[in-house]
Amino acid sequence: MALIVQKFGGTSVGSLERIQHIAEKVAQTRAQGHEVVVVVSAMSGETDRLIALARALGPHPDPREYATLVSTGEQVSMALVAMALLAKGCQARSYTGGQARICTDNHHKKARIMGIEADALKADLKQGFVPVVAGFQGIAANGDITTLGRGGSDTTAVALAAALEADECQIYTDVDGVYTTDPRIAPDARRLSVITFEEMLELASLGAKVLQIRSVEFAGKYNVPLRVLSSFQEGPGTLITFEQVGMEAPKVSGIAFNRDEAKVTLMGVPDKPGVAARILEPVSSGGIDIDMIIQNVAVEGIIDFTFTVHRDDYQKTLELLANVAQELEARAVIGDNKIAKLSLVGVGMRSHAGIASTMFTVLGKEGINIQLISTSEIKISVVIDEKYLELGVRSLHTAFGLGKGI
Amino acid sequence: MALIVQKFGGTSVGSLERIQHIAEKVAQTRAQGHEVVVVVSAMSGETDRLIALARALGPHPDPREYATLVSTGEQVSMALVAMALLAKGCQARSYTGGQARICTDNHHKKARIMGIEADALKADLKQGFVPVVAGFQGIAANGDITTLGRGGSDTTAVALAAALEADECQIYTDVDGVYTTDPRIAPDARRLSVITFEEMLELASLGAKVLQIRSVEFAGKYNVPLRVLSSFQEGPGTLITFEQVGMEAPKVSGIAFNRDEAKVTLMGVPDKPGVAARILEPVSSGGIDIDMIIQNVAVEGIIDFTFTVHRDDYQKTLELLANVAQELEARAVIGDNKIAKLSLVGVGMRSHAGIASTMFTVLGKEGINIQLISTSEIKISVVIDEKYLELGVRSLHTAFGLGKGI
Repeated sequence: MALIVQKFGGTSVGSLERIQHIAEKVAQTRAQGHEVVVVVSAMSGETDRLIALARALGPHPDPREYATLVSTGEQVSMALVAMALLAKGCQARSYTGGQARICTDNHHKKARIMGIEADALKADLKQGFVPVVAGFQGIAANGDITTLGRGGSDTTAVALAAALEADECQIYTDVDGVYTTDPRIAPDARRLSVITFEEMLELASLGAKVLQIRSVEFAGKYNVPLRVLSSFQEGPGTLITFEQVGMEAPKVSGIAFNRDEAKVTLMGVPDKPGVAARILEPVSSGGIDIDMIIQNVAVEGIIDFTFTVHRDDYQKTLELLANVAQELEARAVIGDNKIAKLSLVGVGMRSHAGIASTMFTVLGKEGINIQLISTSEIKISVVIDEKYLELGVRSLHTAFGLGKGI
Repeated sequence: MALIVQKFGGTSVGSLERIQHIAEKVAQTRAQGHEVVVVVSAMSGETDRLIALARALGPHPDPREYATLVSTGEQVSMALVAMALLAKGCQARSYTGGQARICTDNHHKKARIMGIEADALKADLKQGFVPVVAGFQGIAANGDITTLGRGGSDTTAVALAAALEADECQIYTDVDGVYTTDPRIAPDARRLSVITFEEMLELASLGAKVLQIRSVEFAGKYNVPLRVLSSFQEGPGTLITFEQVGMEAPKVSGIAFNRDEAKVTLMGVPDKPGVAARILEPVSSGGIDIDMIIQNVAVEGIIDFTFTVHRDDYQKTLELLANVAQELEARAVIGDNKIAKLSLVGVGMRSHAGIASTMFTVLGKEGINIQLISTSEIKISVVIDEKYLELGVRSLHTAFGLGKGI
């Protein structure tokens, strides 16, 4: 008998039929003798509907009222799921974030969990009940309703699993696991049965949007085994866990990519201390997140300084750089928003040399020019022309043997 | 400067435009120097939507989960109204029933208010805030969300007005007050500027569905002046208050009516102790509410026993009576579901004789046969053939001088 936290996302509770379906799933797990805690998101579309109502009343809704409004989405789901369980003869009881004592700070729209007083849930479990907890929400010390930021239901599930010392935290989504890459691009992409937290963090941050990154960090920090499964089809999903000692890690676990970025280069700025800071300061102050930063060795005391930002911020970034480019007497400011980032991820890279050179060779053979390179211990990212993205992903997927071999 | 509780019903918050409109109204009251507490219902249609979701999962939703689900309707309204007030520069803060510490028993779907710990609201008022409280909901001692039963937002408003010792509790609806009768039947019906709690109770229970009857009882009990106003047009509405000493009460304040009833008569049953109880017991046990009961003097030890039930319960009542009719050797069981009840209401009846005879004369002149009569201190009700209802109402309305004189 294990204690399992099962989290169901918006599409999994998107209709009454689906709610009945997941109630069946939960009841089955319960019937197998396991203790189950359920965490639910709002029915798909509901959060957007509520946000639209708020926005219609003004561009900057009060954060406290906004959280109070949006949290109703999960409250509806949790009550319906509890009803569906009860209708199947499975004892269940719903909990808002406040009722589950998920205590947060008072950053209403992006609250952080400070602690969970899980006594009521533990008492429920002891009595054979299935607690059904609203994801994405908590309660501040003054009784205010808070939300953990969008997508935060995963974090709720992991935090509850940690607080209850659950054996596994299962995240049910509309995909049946984490894949070596996007099957829409590489049709022979394979579901990974196991992946490490570190790899998952790199894959998630690079665009494989299966899990909320904060929940993965959280699970890693509290050592909660996390499993991604489909709520629509049977299967073991992908287990996200710690790196096993002696585990024969594959060189490369997966290929992530995104098309959300744009690159900007200041050509010919002086190679002096403080220059990087001076370039990036106006961009950061403008509220723009910077992803990759690349600076090569200086030639005759002059460097080219390149970084990438979200594509939506491209024009604004160029404007923000105008002054500093003049001050630094940059030769030119150039940019490109038709780029794509492509990343190989794998803990095996730590112990296997030559992966980067294989990657560059494969891309070179296909005639794909590499514009930028950035590496970390378990990841190599390159920026290429957007039009070569699919070709690049497929070539690397095959070259590193990630496919099903079909 | 007064402290005013303003309650807005479902149609008053039925759209974002209407929410903006009532925010304007509240802000105006605030700008006039009054302290305001707002109570809101769910946006019209929302509660029905939520109930439909629950019913789709099973015929008898768990009461705790049902209350949790349905209470989200008011939570959405309160947050939106608070946002709209904030957008107008009016300091506001929303409260769920639990946050407002509206403490109830744990009859989740029909909870009773046990007390209100109004410290937070009082602190808000002192700081110049407008608290916006979700109607219709409270919190049980164990932290469960409860609802006061449908339409209970009026009760929330009155209870808050009592707890805060408000100067007035204003109920905003889609009518601009309480009328002498339904203007659709008597076009010259007049808005009453003042009415007593007792009259309002009789009018409400007889079908003038302006206010929830429980909230009127509550307001009477705690001596909270209640005012019914329209949220769509300006005007003083109708003030519901205690009978003023020396107040020259009109003989008749209003005429209520309904077509929801059916009458059933057991002909020729013995006039013995316990017979009435034996007749009504199977009906009550069948869950059927009985309204009027009429028994005239016995003739030769034999009586006819008549009562009225809701029209929907008519057939079931006839079935439930079959056995007892046989046991009592009743000559016949007859009934009629094409009847209407028409009632004159007025505290002036206490001190003015002859109202009943005037009523009967007026109806007789119009050729309307009176089937049943029932009286109380401030009310005379008659049952007539349904087809004469409009004629009866108009004749009495004119005869008692209730019209505008147009």
